[in-house]
Amino acid sequence: MSAPKLNIVPFVSVDHMMKLVLAVGIERFVTELADYIEDDFRRWELFDKTPRVASHSHDGVIELMPTSDGKLYGFKYVNGHPKNTRAGLQTVTAFGVLADVGSGYPMLLTEMTILTALRTAAMSAVAAKYLAPQGARTMALIGNGAQAEFQAVAFKAIVGIDRLRLYDVDSSASRKCAKNLAGMGFDIVICASGQEAVEGADIITTVTADKQYATILTDNMVGPGVHINAIGGDCPGKTELHRDILLRSDIFVEFPPQTRIEGEIQQLAADHPVTELWQVIAGHAPGRSGERQITLFDSVGFAIEDFSALRYVRDKLRDTGLYEELDLLADPDEPRDLFGMLLRAEAAQAKAVVG
Amino acid sequence: MSAPKLNIVPFVSVDHMMKLVLAVGIERFVTELADYIEDDFRRWELFDKTPRVASHSHDGVIELMPTSDGKLYGFKYVNGHPKNTRAGLQTVTAFGVLADVGSGYPMLLTEMTILTALRTAAMSAVAAKYLAPQGARTMALIGNGAQAEFQAVAFKAIVGIDRLRLYDVDSSASRKCAKNLAGMGFDIVICASGQEAVEGADIITTVTADKQYATILTDNMVGPGVHINAIGGDCPGKTELHRDILLRSDIFVEFPPQTRIEGEIQQLAADHPVTELWQVIAGHAPGRSGERQITLFDSVGFAIEDFSALRYVRDKLRDTGLYEELDLLADPDEPRDLFGMLLRAEAAQAKAVVG
Repeated sequence: MSAPKLNIVPFVSVDHMMKLVLAVGIERFVTELADYIEDDFRRWELFDKTPRVASHSHDGVIELMPTSDGKLYGFKYVNGHPKNTRAGLQTVTAFGVLADVGSGYPMLLTEMTILTALRTAAMSAVAAKYLAPQGARTMALIGNGAQAEFQAVAFKAIVGIDRLRLYDVDSSASRKCAKNLAGMGFDIVICASGQEAVEGADIITTVTADKQYATILTDNMVGPGVHINAIGGDCPGKTELHRDILLRSDIFVEFPPQTRIEGEIQQLAADHPVTELWQVIAGHAPGRSGERQITLFDSVGFAIEDFSALRYVRDKLRDTGLYEELDLLADPDEPRDLFGMLLRAEAAQAKAVVG
Repeated sequence: MSAPKLNIVPFVSVDHMMKLVLAVGIERFVTELADYIEDDFRRWELFDKTPRVASHSHDGVIELMPTSDGKLYGFKYVNGHPKNTRAGLQTVTAFGVLADVGSGYPMLLTEMTILTALRTAAMSAVAAKYLAPQGARTMALIGNGAQAEFQAVAFKAIVGIDRLRLYDVDSSASRKCAKNLAGMGFDIVICASGQEAVEGADIITTVTADKQYATILTDNMVGPGVHINAIGGDCPGKTELHRDILLRSDIFVEFPPQTRIEGEIQQLAADHPVTELWQVIAGHAPGRSGERQITLFDSVGFAIEDFSALRYVRDKLRDTGLYEELDLLADPDEPRDLFGMLLRAEAAQAKAVVG
């Protein structure tokens, strides 16, 4: 029996994450990840919840998103810099850590740029499972950037969407999206306007990236019975929907103290009624309750979703071995002797030079 | 000219950090690090300051400590679990990240268990430079665990301390400390009590680890003119000094909103006067002002000190090359095409199998 290497933290690189997603299969990955999210949303009350810790600057934001269920602790580092694409950089990059609450020791470090795209899509699809109209097959996908295909795949795997109506102000983004999704079982139409995209859609997903108040959807574009999955409005000053749509919708959110600052509902009064999605998933509150009801998932992304994703990746590593070992933690033979560890490293160096 | 590898983040492992410290030399490392801390304390007002984000549990705490000067962003993950030593684990482990505010991209990931020990010692010595009595040579060092030798070395390099009086409830810790410091130019006495250790000391450093209210120093042990460097009292419910000592001392702190919760002054009224150390370093407030004055640095550790340490390590890497390259950031050729990156990885895999 080999002793556990106390200094080592498993690390999932971008390359290993891609291999992991491909080994599992993208549809199965988001489906299993969605199950982890649902499990954690059912035990929502257990979690230590706090709004993300954001550091805003002129060009963007850097955030830390921690949470804990009392046994595990997770946090994500994530930035949002809309200008980055012009410099050939990602708008959003992320990495995360899962740690043991009992010892405080990190147990996993992983890239989370790809993983966040997957968990955001899984979260959207979980919400739609409870909120979208029965038998929904057609989704309008407005905003065809980095998140778009992940949304499509998750909605196919979890909700049964197989008809996509794409729209982006930049038509090359729509073509990229359609090309990437070719052969995956979708009937895809590229549309010339948002108005055209929403025609006949059961679900409208808005996932644009501009850091400003925008109106991707106006009131006349939203008919009765539709479910709106609003992903892109996710920080102060960034919204996608006209206020009148919000007033006609039943609104579902992740964590109200965060969504009231960051979500579409920053346009509404601070006491405007909303339903916490976990209450729906746990069976404490109704989801969709009528055919003509407009439901809106005002998603901003919450730490518990990242926690679920970190748990899922950790569980998958056992079987796949798709990780590296990172020498991240100082581990002297005698815990109080950190300085002595330095001295012994010095002695070992000297010996190596002599020998 | 090779293109910058946008997916790569330099990573300093524990092994590389030890090599870096030894290559620079421990005394020079803490001295140069102290200069970075002083530089950052002089421009204190520039920083985005927030109390650490703590997740407390029965056995300890996990904290995130972010800050930014508007150009760089840094944060540290650090735990504190006093029970860990009994399981052969470190009480405190840490790692940190430095990032570019303009793009949100991480620029450095580094172990910070060793680095925190060095920055804590450098910070203490910087404070003593302004607060300790002139010509101080003798320091009582109460608590001889993992931080003790680092304190000794920093006080020697920066303040001129060459006589140490060690005391720990566990005498084996004192012997470990004395052994590690042998041959480094100290006159060392191991004492049988705290009372004995403080005899003739110009500076008293308390650095014990119990997570509870303790009284390492009682009022009668502290004579006029002494500087107290209180390191161990650093979270709610954890203090080391009797309240009467605080009432006789002029108290200097890092960031009052944090220190009032975590420091020795949690024993005092919320409006008890304290001086912010940066004001002293910047020349806006006096440090030591008299021979009989008792000065107290009520240190809890603040994010700006970690930021200074991250800056210092980053600057040192350029010359030494003591780091690895971590594939941490997804970097698709086309930033909006994260999904396409996955598909291309799949195609590459298939080709490798065929070929």
